[in-house]
Amino acid sequence: MADEHLTLDDVEKLATDALTGAGARPEAAASVARSTVKAERDGIRSHGLLYVPIYAEHVVCGKVDGRAEPVVSRQRAGAVTVDARSGFAHPAIDAGWQALLDAARENGIAAMTVFNSYNCGVLGHHAERIAEDGLIGLCFTHAPASIAPAGGKTPVIGTNPFAVGVPDTEGGAAIVIDQSASVVAKSEIMLRARTGEAIEAGWALDAGGNVTTDPAEALKGSMAPAGGYKGFGVGLMVELLAACLSGAVLSKDASPFSGTKGGPPNTGQCFIAIEPAGFSPAFSERVGALSAAITAQEGTRLPGGRRQANRARIVEEGVTADTELLNRIRGFCRPNYN
Amino acid sequence: MADEHLTLDDVEKLATDALTGAGARPEAAASVARSTVKAERDGIRSHGLLYVPIYAEHVVCGKVDGRAEPVVSRQRAGAVTVDARSGFAHPAIDAGWQALLDAARENGIAAMTVFNSYNCGVLGHHAERIAEDGLIGLCFTHAPASIAPAGGKTPVIGTNPFAVGVPDTEGGAAIVIDQSASVVAKSEIMLRARTGEAIEAGWALDAGGNVTTDPAEALKGSMAPAGGYKGFGVGLMVELLAACLSGAVLSKDASPFSGTKGGPPNTGQCFIAIEPAGFSPAFSERVGALSAAITAQEGTRLPGGRRQANRARIVEEGVTADTELLNRIRGFCRPNYN
Repeated sequence: MADEHLTLDDVEKLATDALTGAGARPEAAASVARSTVKAERDGIRSHGLLYVPIYAEHVVCGKVDGRAEPVVSRQRAGAVTVDARSGFAHPAIDAGWQALLDAARENGIAAMTVFNSYNCGVLGHHAERIAEDGLIGLCFTHAPASIAPAGGKTPVIGTNPFAVGVPDTEGGAAIVIDQSASVVAKSEIMLRARTGEAIEAGWALDAGGNVTTDPAEALKGSMAPAGGYKGFGVGLMVELLAACLSGAVLSKDASPFSGTKGGPPNTGQCFIAIEPAGFSPAFSERVGALSAAITAQEGTRLPGGRRQANRARIVEEGVTADTELLNRIRGFCRPNYN
Repeated sequence: MADEHLTLDDVEKLATDALTGAGARPEAAASVARSTVKAERDGIRSHGLLYVPIYAEHVVCGKVDGRAEPVVSRQRAGAVTVDARSGFAHPAIDAGWQALLDAARENGIAAMTVFNSYNCGVLGHHAERIAEDGLIGLCFTHAPASIAPAGGKTPVIGTNPFAVGVPDTEGGAAIVIDQSASVVAKSEIMLRARTGEAIEAGWALDAGGNVTTDPAEALKGSMAPAGGYKGFGVGLMVELLAACLSGAVLSKDASPFSGTKGGPPNTGQCFIAIEPAGFSPAFSERVGALSAAITAQEGTRLPGGRRQANRARIVEEGVTADTELLNRIRGFCRPNYN
């Protein structure tokens, strides 16, 4: 099938139209479409256009309530909570965003938890957005269980990423860390299960808790945590904040983020925002010196460096996507495309 | 050399007397001695009596100002900062503790940063203490640089641990996570350098950035991060909070925690405290269900499980320590022991 060229504006319009076509309210569709653009812009294709048919399908099947209006509360001066009401994560996060920033600037630190939520896309983009507002962002999101505790066989936590965004002095982010608790992304295992290519030893375990190179066996078992029990510890920290503190459904009880079965996953997120000026006037100088000590070394780059490089190129060039995928997306775009 | 038996009360008295003998003010000595007892009680001997001669020597040589009086500020409702003034970390943390708890309870979340600080001992004990006060504790501390960025050779961050403490419903901690960013503790490499035993491949790199099994070469190079670049990412998050946000000296610029050279390290810590009730009434139920899903699996335990098992035994039995070590400690205890 042929490839088509799209500008990032084309991507945003297509995603918006597909999501509204599927039944999402316009503000929710726009919010999710912005995240699709950011993912394509940074070369993170797994969370770009590829995900749009899944999002749209989930609205159609009721796994996401496309009409849900999130409800924001501020129970304490530094505590913002958002009930996403089984809608998309992105509009729920948007709904609480200004309250989170206000609370962090007033108090030096604040947190926003989101529950009855869904897949929030590329976590690092939320951390970067906090950094662009001049604050440090610590972000946590969980996912249906795929990692077992050390010594165990049954997945208890998801690949549970955390992300950190640190402001520079010019309205951007100096550093963005965004990493999951697993050795590799689960999507890589799923891709190899389709192609039949073996996975590397150390990526995943079979249902018996043994190392496997068979992707099909891996999908019946569990993902290996990065750094062994320490990766599980990182993912557990994320679970405690994104699921337990938010009051969301635990990873072990959540319905899958893929497929149409199981109803809304009702997972959660936690975002902590910190105003550096509330703590130390030396913050930006220290971040600059730390960054420089990393980038001065040949062969290294800051976390997020590859995404930045992609961004510079893709903002200029746009993206290509295969017509089959685009036609699947267009199928949701009634009346515009049908 | 013979071993001697000590109760935990004996440990506390001995550590207190050695530190006051070395020149620490009584409150500072008592605070550090309490941390020594907790380390011995949990079987973490590297941070117990073994460390007391180092602490005392650092007071004597001026690497720690034993008379320093920490200064606490609260610049925002949720922002507590402590200048440890090149004294011990423990009394500086104690000085800001109540303000941190008050701020977290009032605002739902608060943070305390400590600068001009020092080695804070077992980080998990601080996280557990926050949990015992009914709050979630997220704790971060950095250390003189020993981990290089992925692809680099020059250490930029320390073994930089994080710790998480989660309250149970009975005034204790349900879960305590406490883990460094490196594959193994640097003390293990130093021990093997003394005994001449090879280290395992994957623990450390030589000065050229190559895997080595020679502990002496490893000490000239860098510690391997747990999970590769993801371990570096975790340590970098810690550096950003414990060093940059606090305004402390960066890991790469800090004097060593061992030996008498280089003056005060003036490193830092960051402690975030969160009141679960400010966010979700479901928190404790979720933590209970999550813990049960881990411990129900044969061969697993919660993070911190080994320390808990040691604690139950050592509180009953006390500890043994070799007379040579005890005599070195007693050497600082004038006039009590000399």
